[in-house]
Amino acid sequence: MRILLTNDDGVYAPGLRALRKELLQLGEVTVVAPATEQSAVGHSVTLLTPLLVQELRDEEQRFFGWAVEGRPADCVKLALLELLPDPPDLVVSGMNAGANAGINVLYSGTVAAAIEGAFFQQVSIAVSLEYTKPRALDFSAATPVARKVIEQILATKPSPGSLFNINIPAAERGPIKGVRITQQNVAPYQERFDRRVDPRGRTYFWTGSDFGCPEPNPDTDEHALRDGYVTVTPLQFDLTNRAQLRDLQRLKWEV
Amino acid sequence: MRILLTNDDGVYAPGLRALRKELLQLGEVTVVAPATEQSAVGHSVTLLTPLLVQELRDEEQRFFGWAVEGRPADCVKLALLELLPDPPDLVVSGMNAGANAGINVLYSGTVAAAIEGAFFQQVSIAVSLEYTKPRALDFSAATPVARKVIEQILATKPSPGSLFNINIPAAERGPIKGVRITQQNVAPYQERFDRRVDPRGRTYFWTGSDFGCPEPNPDTDEHALRDGYVTVTPLQFDLTNRAQLRDLQRLKWEV
Repeated sequence: MRILLTNDDGVYAPGLRALRKELLQLGEVTVVAPATEQSAVGHSVTLLTPLLVQELRDEEQRFFGWAVEGRPADCVKLALLELLPDPPDLVVSGMNAGANAGINVLYSGTVAAAIEGAFFQQVSIAVSLEYTKPRALDFSAATPVARKVIEQILATKPSPGSLFNINIPAAERGPIKGVRITQQNVAPYQERFDRRVDPRGRTYFWTGSDFGCPEPNPDTDEHALRDGYVTVTPLQFDLTNRAQLRDLQRLKWEV
Repeated sequence: MRILLTNDDGVYAPGLRALRKELLQLGEVTVVAPATEQSAVGHSVTLLTPLLVQELRDEEQRFFGWAVEGRPADCVKLALLELLPDPPDLVVSGMNAGANAGINVLYSGTVAAAIEGAFFQQVSIAVSLEYTKPRALDFSAATPVARKVIEQILATKPSPGSLFNINIPAAERGPIKGVRITQQNVAPYQERFDRRVDPRGRTYFWTGSDFGCPEPNPDTDEHALRDGYVTVTPLQFDLTNRAQLRDLQRLKWEV
């Protein structure tokens, strides 16, 4: 099996390195990832600046992949259209430092890279590790869990373009209780800005770090993650609101 | 009626200026928009740099709004949490220079700003004008059409958090044939990169400008737009694939 591995934390991120090592048990892994950190870039693509690409080798000078000075979605496009000699069997994005559940799915560069894979009809999987304390991230414990869940997903023989979002609970939540197949939480988030004034009298804001969903809905990714379950959410990229579509089509519209 | 107006082409973009003028017929309009062009940034948010904010006045020194050195979604967050003295009745994003239909909906900063409004339970509408030749954009002809469609949407008394994506066909397609309530096209796109080598021997790529959907599915935004119709697509931001959710929940999963 040929696996394309990307992420949004950048090619040198420990989460990508740990996941690569684990995925080597499943097949050949080629990394095409951003040269620098690209968190919360969503589904950005680079139109107005050139995408510099650098070939990478590991400590033993074996081919490792490419670093791209671009966004996660750029990496997937470039890999599939230009860099990989053969199409992969699977696109994996991660392992992200931080959960990508609820409306964070929309902000996430990790998930956007997987969605980009699905645009190209690739089976694509985003993988994220929740953290509650930044320095407590234990990728070495989480990557075997991710691999086992990926193996079970592949055993279902997903059709081309199938898209999955895996989240693994933080180690502080205790032993993993199991796997839950969940929907994306859509309950509102709480967030705030820090308002400051610079030495020249100009107002600026910092996006607060305490962004979170105080009350996730039951049976959702965020709820199950807090209960200590690995979550798997099957995703799709058609944003049409179908219920409303039918209602609006019954009306008369004019220009 | 109080309207928050934003976009992704930046606060000085002619599409925003033209749409503002038109929306003043519906109520009070406050602009909170990016200081610089932010096309194809998707649902990026700014976490690691400060968001500088500058108050803007029009030619006659009347209050106009704020320019934010950030992404479209940052503008909506800041407007709703910090800048606006009262919550708006409507969030409008646009008018974008270029259609946002099909999978472009996922790349679009214009649509992301409207989705961000919906996160805050605001009725939110993205408006885009298709172009086939960049210099042929006629916002003055398109903005009255946009206003009429927005008025008809508001007449349906949409519930809080309702989200709509309006596209107006390029003038070159001839007189507008009517309004179509459509779904988002999900048919694959054709795209390519230009591979080049810099004077130092480094490989780089330009994202091609001929990105497009050769065969949009019938009854979709892209198809109707090409036929010369204004399209209205009701959107939502739950990416869960519900059919697949039920199938996967029937299986046994282990860690």
